[in-house]
Amino acid sequence: MPKTADKYLEVEPWRIVKKGFHPDRSEISESLFALGNEYMGVRGYFEEGYSGETLAGSYFNGVYEYAPTPVEQGFRGMVNRTHFMINAVDWLYTGITIGGERLDCAKSRISGFVRVLDMRDGTLTRSLIWETTRGRKVRLTFQRFVSMHCANLGCLRIRITPLGFSGSVEVDLGLDFSRPHTLTQTNYWTPVRKKQSRAGAMIMARTQTSGQRLFSSFSASASVPCRRSAISSEKLAGVRLVLSVKDGATAVIDKAVVNMVERDAAKSDGRAWDAGIKSAGMLLDQGYDAAYQKHRAYWENVWRNGDITIDGAPESQQGIRFSIFHLHQAYHGVDPRLNIGAKGLTGEMYWGWTWWDTETYCLPFYLFTNPSAARNLLEYRHSTLPGAIERARQLDCEGARYPMGTIDGSEACSTWQHGDLEIHVSAAVAYGIRHYLKVTNDTEFLYTKGIEVLLQICRYYASRGQWSPRTGEFGFYGVMGADEFHMMVHNNCYTNVMAKKAFEYTLSIIERMRRTAPKQLAAAFRKVRLRSTEIADWKTKARRMRVPIDMKTGIYEQHDGYFDLPRIDVRSIPPRQFPLYKHWAYVRIFRYDMIKQPDVLLLHFFFSHDYSLANKRANFEYYEPRCSHESSLSPAIHSILAAELGKFDKARAYMQHAFRLDLDNYNRNTHEGVHTTSMAAAWMNVVYGYGGMRSDGDALSLSPSMPRRWNSYGFRIVYRGSSLHVLVDKKKVSVTRMDGPDISVRLYGKEVMVAGEISAALPKNRRAR
Amino acid sequence: MPKTADKYLEVEPWRIVKKGFHPDRSEISESLFALGNEYMGVRGYFEEGYSGETLAGSYFNGVYEYAPTPVEQGFRGMVNRTHFMINAVDWLYTGITIGGERLDCAKSRISGFVRVLDMRDGTLTRSLIWETTRGRKVRLTFQRFVSMHCANLGCLRIRITPLGFSGSVEVDLGLDFSRPHTLTQTNYWTPVRKKQSRAGAMIMARTQTSGQRLFSSFSASASVPCRRSAISSEKLAGVRLVLSVKDGATAVIDKAVVNMVERDAAKSDGRAWDAGIKSAGMLLDQGYDAAYQKHRAYWENVWRNGDITIDGAPESQQGIRFSIFHLHQAYHGVDPRLNIGAKGLTGEMYWGWTWWDTETYCLPFYLFTNPSAARNLLEYRHSTLPGAIERARQLDCEGARYPMGTIDGSEACSTWQHGDLEIHVSAAVAYGIRHYLKVTNDTEFLYTKGIEVLLQICRYYASRGQWSPRTGEFGFYGVMGADEFHMMVHNNCYTNVMAKKAFEYTLSIIERMRRTAPKQLAAAFRKVRLRSTEIADWKTKARRMRVPIDMKTGIYEQHDGYFDLPRIDVRSIPPRQFPLYKHWAYVRIFRYDMIKQPDVLLLHFFFSHDYSLANKRANFEYYEPRCSHESSLSPAIHSILAAELGKFDKARAYMQHAFRLDLDNYNRNTHEGVHTTSMAAAWMNVVYGYGGMRSDGDALSLSPSMPRRWNSYGFRIVYRGSSLHVLVDKKKVSVTRMDGPDISVRLYGKEVMVAGEISAALPKNRRAR
Repeated sequence: MPKTADKYLEVEPWRIVKKGFHPDRSEISESLFALGNEYMGVRGYFEEGYSGETLAGSYFNGVYEYAPTPVEQGFRGMVNRTHFMINAVDWLYTGITIGGERLDCAKSRISGFVRVLDMRDGTLTRSLIWETTRGRKVRLTFQRFVSMHCANLGCLRIRITPLGFSGSVEVDLGLDFSRPHTLTQTNYWTPVRKKQSRAGAMIMARTQTSGQRLFSSFSASASVPCRRSAISSEKLAGVRLVLSVKDGATAVIDKAVVNMVERDAAKSDGRAWDAGIKSAGMLLDQGYDAAYQKHRAYWENVWRNGDITIDGAPESQQGIRFSIFHLHQAYHGVDPRLNIGAKGLTGEMYWGWTWWDTETYCLPFYLFTNPSAARNLLEYRHSTLPGAIERARQLDCEGARYPMGTIDGSEACSTWQHGDLEIHVSAAVAYGIRHYLKVTNDTEFLYTKGIEVLLQICRYYASRGQWSPRTGEFGFYGVMGADEFHMMVHNNCYTNVMAKKAFEYTLSIIERMRRTAPKQLAAAFRKVRLRSTEIADWKTKARRMRVPIDMKTGIYEQHDGYFDLPRIDVRSIPPRQFPLYKHWAYVRIFRYDMIKQPDVLLLHFFFSHDYSLANKRANFEYYEPRCSHESSLSPAIHSILAAELGKFDKARAYMQHAFRLDLDNYNRNTHEGVHTTSMAAAWMNVVYGYGGMRSDGDALSLSPSMPRRWNSYGFRIVYRGSSLHVLVDKKKVSVTRMDGPDISVRLYGKEVMVAGEISAALPKNRRAR
Repeated sequence: MPKTADKYLEVEPWRIVKKGFHPDRSEISESLFALGNEYMGVRGYFEEGYSGETLAGSYFNGVYEYAPTPVEQGFRGMVNRTHFMINAVDWLYTGITIGGERLDCAKSRISGFVRVLDMRDGTLTRSLIWETTRGRKVRLTFQRFVSMHCANLGCLRIRITPLGFSGSVEVDLGLDFSRPHTLTQTNYWTPVRKKQSRAGAMIMARTQTSGQRLFSSFSASASVPCRRSAISSEKLAGVRLVLSVKDGATAVIDKAVVNMVERDAAKSDGRAWDAGIKSAGMLLDQGYDAAYQKHRAYWENVWRNGDITIDGAPESQQGIRFSIFHLHQAYHGVDPRLNIGAKGLTGEMYWGWTWWDTETYCLPFYLFTNPSAARNLLEYRHSTLPGAIERARQLDCEGARYPMGTIDGSEACSTWQHGDLEIHVSAAVAYGIRHYLKVTNDTEFLYTKGIEVLLQICRYYASRGQWSPRTGEFGFYGVMGADEFHMMVHNNCYTNVMAKKAFEYTLSIIERMRRTAPKQLAAAFRKVRLRSTEIADWKTKARRMRVPIDMKTGIYEQHDGYFDLPRIDVRSIPPRQFPLYKHWAYVRIFRYDMIKQPDVLLLHFFFSHDYSLANKRANFEYYEPRCSHESSLSPAIHSILAAELGKFDKARAYMQHAFRLDLDNYNRNTHEGVHTTSMAAAWMNVVYGYGGMRSDGDALSLSPSMPRRWNSYGFRIVYRGSSLHVLVDKKKVSVTRMDGPDISVRLYGKEVMVAGEISAALPKNRRAR
């Protein structure tokens, strides 16, 4: 899989800077310069419109449509109708006209073009000089932010400076619901109400099949005298400002926008409209500067508590901050009904669905940098429990079967081989709860909500599994594991172990609650109507779960029969045949020992303490050469394990693209949106990889190593209420408690109490040569 | 699978008679009373139209459309656009009007209603008395046949007898292209030309996507004076006869129709039209009676050479003749470009596709009753070789991969798990060629065409298979076998053995041709561009083909890991849960040891001589209880093997529905069309089952047994040019050579020469108690 960087950005520690305008990369830039705040996200498209190539996407988390026509798949249990996040209102809508000529970077005469994304304060600024065909020159600066402090708020400031003339400039500001969803080339919005005034406009529209409403309102102010008039078309409402500008003087226009989603189709248009107006009334008055101060304060706090520093590798430094930045934009715990899509809110690919990536790849980032956001992610699984129960029922099972992909909690994945066979998602949710408890010890969540989810997950696996007539063991037949290159296999190692762990953890929590929270336990049992035989049944099934392994080598068999699969040397496949899904007949992919992404090795990472270093080594050396890394989530796990095994060259090679996957467009698909969940993997790559952190034990353990080309690196994490700063250089490791109570951690296997700063020498074998 | 008969027909040896009119069974009757002649088929709908429930289908073999929109399945090699046989011209179109009132059996006052299908001459006759609301009574008789002598010809005779009045009767006769295809509720025909005259009319229409043309022409004659005028609408052309009828006197109207298909989209409308006119000119003049005589002669010959008699079981007698009748209607060797759909030409289900059923279930019937038709079935595979080669290429293989379902030779099956994983179809074609040669010794076909097909099939399997790293054996990974309840398995026993046999047979033919037809062999090698290494490669792969077996018990393992599948007692599944596809979540079906239809046991039938009786018994006793018979082809194979094993109760139980599956509507889906391929299985059930015939050895072998309730039974077969009559009663078996050369057969394992009549006592263990 030889990938190459497509470098075109300046390297700076805190900013993403692009000088000059490159139409052929316009959609890539839109992805990189996307802003978001979990509630809404907007790609870095040009406010004033652009007739060239553009994916002018504006997305709202949880706002979706159903596919227009159900697909008749004819077999029971298959999903016939999917749902997906849709392109919504263009609330940045702007038009700039001078002397009857409208600015369009695809056609106009432009110079001094520069874009800056400042990650310290989450602002995107674009400057340019425009010379009209009649020779009028003007400097324009657009600055926007999507408020991290107030989820409904987005702000735009336009600065206009005439260079060599005085006169009038027309500025249209609006809210435009007429944009199509790009993947389907369909617009899903029907306007229901509109109101216009001199100060701004408001408009509310409804989706076609989900019945959701999106209210959008803005007010505009100008620093110079202007004439105002309303502009309107079927799906647009706005205001036209005709400004009187003076040569050399900068006119400033501020547009503050409040967007508000009504998810409940049962709520009347009138109530949704009134709620929008009320909210807009409260939020729009504060003005750009006040809103910006609060937004900036949020980001300052983010960096204070969750920055990663890398000294000696400016590209990696920029890349890891870019990852952290986008992760916070995608999700930071605003609303427990929301979750994280594979592209965050920066594109339409992967349909805005929540996958098992949330618990397996994203959750650790939030656990250690924003624990309340981590809790919200689990609250989402609790609130979507009914959908998971319904899905289990559709597939002739009991309990809770979490969907492969979803927005509203129902299964959206209509590719049945994935949606119906990948039964490991529920176990990932149980793993997420377990991990959350390890790091936060939030028993309140566990006892009131987590336990209910766990019980239903155990019930699901108990009903889904079967007994082997040959070995008398319990296991899962006809599944697809974490590795998606093998379909309808039996006893997938990852799935079996994950379910075994879900059973065992739940049983241990039941034991604990029997002693410490018997009433809450009884309430949970009542709620799920636990049958008297179930707990004993789960114990038996956990105990007798099949874990396929070659006892001689200690190598786990990925599934029954895996060791008999024909061998293929992944390196022998010509690079042009990747991605295989596009170049190989689909059914061919499944008949080799080649895997798409780690399956067995995930277990060695998730449950690090369960496996000896020797066992990790044996399995890594067996499976690593068999992996095609066709999933962008794959390299990070390999890098983390390689670092643990002291295979620093491999660790480095697998990490190579992690930080700059999008910045340097390694996969050549950044134009579709950024790889949000891969960014979470990049964070893990530093903290779990070189940082050597493991969080599956009773205490946090750290065994940092030092890569060859770095001088030092550091990261900040929150663990059980304590804020820690870990700093590693070529000689030593220091751990400093920045905030919170004293905390005990294991440093290189030795338990130490961190009160102030402690440090240890970097062992020789932890330094890459 | 408890099934019950839904009896409503009279039991007669040669006729299907239904007295009285039952609107609730109108579509079932339409299927049962369907007529056809391979080229075209027409359901038993009412000529004059019917406003009640009707599936007024008229089908032309090989006339199809592509699905209107491609389904985007997104994965390489999956079929995105299917094709299917479509409803075509209603050439029986008739309207009968008296005093302004039009006959409609759904609304009119009807008595004396009776329908008779006479299997001796292939005519369908319907009589009724109609009383108009104004009290005019008339006896009407409609008689139709679809000529077995001339594929393009269909005839209708209407007799009208006024009962108590004289006056005029209006009879509209036409050709109507306006009928929708029922499954899609779409009409696919665009009329391109039309011509009308006093004698009749002609019309030609074109399909939308396949560009085929159907020319239809009729001429009408009347035995009484009449006024004639043209009738016409967008997709209809016809003639109105206003007859002067006299009380008590029968007026006879004959409508002779010539239909002609132009399959080649490249041919111009003008040429297709001219060819139709020419053909109509030659055929329409002869008149109803002359055409009928030739048609009748064909059927007499059929029964003379291919009847099965059953004495002592009138229902079975009627049922088996009904099966033979429909088989000849579906196919009798008119055109090598045509083949057999699962419902023949009697309905739309299964899309008119050719399946592997052709070689495995249908071919024996034709081999032994109509060898030239059998050859045509194999010619079809030869002429569709390019489609099979293209399909292999699409799936990253070489050679010829015959489609799962097809009309034009390209893969039509877009359910990828079947279309892409059931790789056993090519092997069935090779098996069909081998079987054909065994029975006919037609080396001319083998050396000129068969060999080319065989070479390409071997090439396919050589490219598709892989080597097991564990056992060093060759086999097929990621397949679905004959049993469709297990998907993406490795080393499916049926597939592996069938491919091994294909290799071995081809290699033996190459050897034979080296000696006897070296030039033809060289030509075949040149044509397929055989590489120098291929033959050696096939030898190795045949020799080292994995045949999974438990050496201790002799039980073949259906696929790798099958013996480890969780056990389910098929009898424990509540009857209401069948068919499982409708009542179980799809993915649930695949995780038990339950099978849909025979897989291993097919081998024990196809290659009877390769397996000892003890091995047959062991495998039957293992797999039979695991079979759900969800395929209607399944019981026959079980019945045949049960008879061989002396398990006469089971043989009888499995045969129970075979003869009257449709007549008594056991599956409650006869309204969709008759089960043509199951009818072929019913034929095998008598001849291979009780008749104990085996045709896989060097000579034909016969080991008849006698079921309990029959007095005697007999069947006629053609074998290597000799026509034989086998008659079995409670005491003895006689084999009589009716025609052709003396022939050597094995009777109860003893080689005997049949010159005139030979006979043997029925062994005791061959008589059911």
